[in-house]
Amino acid sequence: MERVYLDNNATTRVAQEVLDAMLPWFRERWGNPSSLYPLGEASADAMRAARSELARLVGGTPEEVVFTSGASESIATAFESARRRGGDRVRFVTSAVEHSAVTAQVEACAASGAETVVAGVDHEGRLDRDAVLSAIDGRTALVSLILANNETGVVSDLGEIAAACKAADAWLHVDAVQAPGKLPLDVSELGADLLSLSAHKFHGPKGVGALWARRDLPLAGLVLGGPQEREVRAGTENVPGIVGAGVAARLAREHALDTAALDRLTGMRDRLETGILERIPGARVHGAGAPRVPNTTNIGFSGDLDAITLLALLAASGVDASAGSACHADRSGPSPVLLAMGCSEGEAAGSLRLSLSRDTTGEDVERAIGAVSEAIETLRALA
Amino acid sequence: MERVYLDNNATTRVAQEVLDAMLPWFRERWGNPSSLYPLGEASADAMRAARSELARLVGGTPEEVVFTSGASESIATAFESARRRGGDRVRFVTSAVEHSAVTAQVEACAASGAETVVAGVDHEGRLDRDAVLSAIDGRTALVSLILANNETGVVSDLGEIAAACKAADAWLHVDAVQAPGKLPLDVSELGADLLSLSAHKFHGPKGVGALWARRDLPLAGLVLGGPQEREVRAGTENVPGIVGAGVAARLAREHALDTAALDRLTGMRDRLETGILERIPGARVHGAGAPRVPNTTNIGFSGDLDAITLLALLAASGVDASAGSACHADRSGPSPVLLAMGCSEGEAAGSLRLSLSRDTTGEDVERAIGAVSEAIETLRALA
Repeated sequence: MERVYLDNNATTRVAQEVLDAMLPWFRERWGNPSSLYPLGEASADAMRAARSELARLVGGTPEEVVFTSGASESIATAFESARRRGGDRVRFVTSAVEHSAVTAQVEACAASGAETVVAGVDHEGRLDRDAVLSAIDGRTALVSLILANNETGVVSDLGEIAAACKAADAWLHVDAVQAPGKLPLDVSELGADLLSLSAHKFHGPKGVGALWARRDLPLAGLVLGGPQEREVRAGTENVPGIVGAGVAARLAREHALDTAALDRLTGMRDRLETGILERIPGARVHGAGAPRVPNTTNIGFSGDLDAITLLALLAASGVDASAGSACHADRSGPSPVLLAMGCSEGEAAGSLRLSLSRDTTGEDVERAIGAVSEAIETLRALA
Repeated sequence: MERVYLDNNATTRVAQEVLDAMLPWFRERWGNPSSLYPLGEASADAMRAARSELARLVGGTPEEVVFTSGASESIATAFESARRRGGDRVRFVTSAVEHSAVTAQVEACAASGAETVVAGVDHEGRLDRDAVLSAIDGRTALVSLILANNETGVVSDLGEIAAACKAADAWLHVDAVQAPGKLPLDVSELGADLLSLSAHKFHGPKGVGALWARRDLPLAGLVLGGPQEREVRAGTENVPGIVGAGVAARLAREHALDTAALDRLTGMRDRLETGILERIPGARVHGAGAPRVPNTTNIGFSGDLDAITLLALLAASGVDASAGSACHADRSGPSPVLLAMGCSEGEAAGSLRLSLSRDTTGEDVERAIGAVSEAIETLRALA
């Protein structure tokens, strides 16, 4: 029996069209895009096409897109660029529900003497906008906020914050990693100065990301050397991966504009929640009262459950899920995101994240409802 | 007619075994290695196997290998780690024939106030060992040297330098990017503290590199966030790419131990040189008097030739080659490596790099000899 994969916020299956597009670039057209003969020029052309697709995905222009090895590197580049602003720009503003790639950067800023402000969220995961707004002034180098939360799916409305950033010339970096395919993205509407993406979160390959940066924004590279990627990111480009990211970007853009597809996804997510809540007394959905992307649910259960045991039982029934961020999976301790939303340590440590994708079927959802209910009953019977 | 690809120092064709090994990891086994269910564990297992192959390639242990997105990132991580040594360790030592990924790091060190020493080479590209040795003392943070030169193939004997580094506790970083498959590699014999590699230079995929670092050496990461790669390199791992790098490492190790294969490569390279030198008066091989890897030749021609025109003529005859580093191809100006070897600007600007691989055939070599001879005759007739 096929497994039910409900951990699409951790990573997604590469789309067949993506893999098909990548294949020729390994052994048929393997040229270095910097090389001046046709084999190299073909690679450079393919990268140009992919760059246009990434630009279209976010509503920017191709020259504003820098390919990276993934979102963690995109985020690191955004922060490094902001640290170089110098002068009075010593403040970094973020929230308590960011991915660890942002949290670690903010901690590094603090360790090197910068001022940091971490805004909280309410019990539904809604950003404390006033806390962010009051930290934006002529001393603010960067405001970095997650658009669609990786653990809860909660979507932040960044409009007012973007306007305040613009007025103060503070840069707004948007972690949009969980948005492609789930939300239409437009950097102008968002008012973003920088935006980070990772291809493997939207059915593209692992090892490729992008940093979109407003045209005139001075970027500081981490990887120095060759003149690749506008001298921001040296090294021979990952041509097959970038080609795959381009196709994945096109598919994600189309999916996010396909109302019927999004409705289908929302319907499956809602059915999953209703099915579990009906069967399990005391279960509740974290962030249900906030706007959310259509693919993510995060469910807490009353009583002190151990999510690791719950995940093991689910895996044994063929359902793959997680308890918070995959980048957090090896670490002990409850999810900082759920703690920031006011969950007790016990509840946070026993919560389950289920994340769907366009590959998810109605049958997957029904099997997951059954497996989660049985696993919780088993755990409660053991307690 | 098949093209003759003689630019293997720029990038190589992915080996069929490498691609075959990568394929299942895109759509059949796409799990995040941090995930706790079988799909994730399979990815983690595959990474472990690949890490062992990289360790075997360099004679180290798996826990000493950090996967990166390529050698430029490996090098950046080595330098960042050395910059963090602090105290009196303010000196960075390198040579005048390094890849731009090292040169740019040394320049960044200088810009931030560090002391930098750039040792020269003689007319054959042999390192001025005394200049390096006299710069190694208790104030030296890092010595970074290329093992096999990417433009000339000249191999440096780092033995004495490694001993001096060890005595002074200066770290020795070896840029071994052009070595796999051409030289047996052993970090203990080299006396290296750090060593950088890039999979696409040895028939692995683009977008994957490795940094080997001596077990107890404190590494400082550039990409922060999740705990991947011993907390040195955050972000979801490029599993298919890493699997491919593992197979490529095995093939490269086997090739470098296969005397017959290396002799065949040397024989083809020598035939290429003899053929061209016999036909073209005034041609000479840069670095011919120094030890070289068996796959690389760099040929200068008397008279002021424009390498860009030469490469265009060669490309028109179906021969793909380069004039120096691919990471330098877009930039104007002659090769800094050849200038450091005492070439005139005119000679450096008109030199040709031909780099073979285990895929190269005797017929490729004969076609290249003919094409180069004809192209030079054409250029000389036009002059």
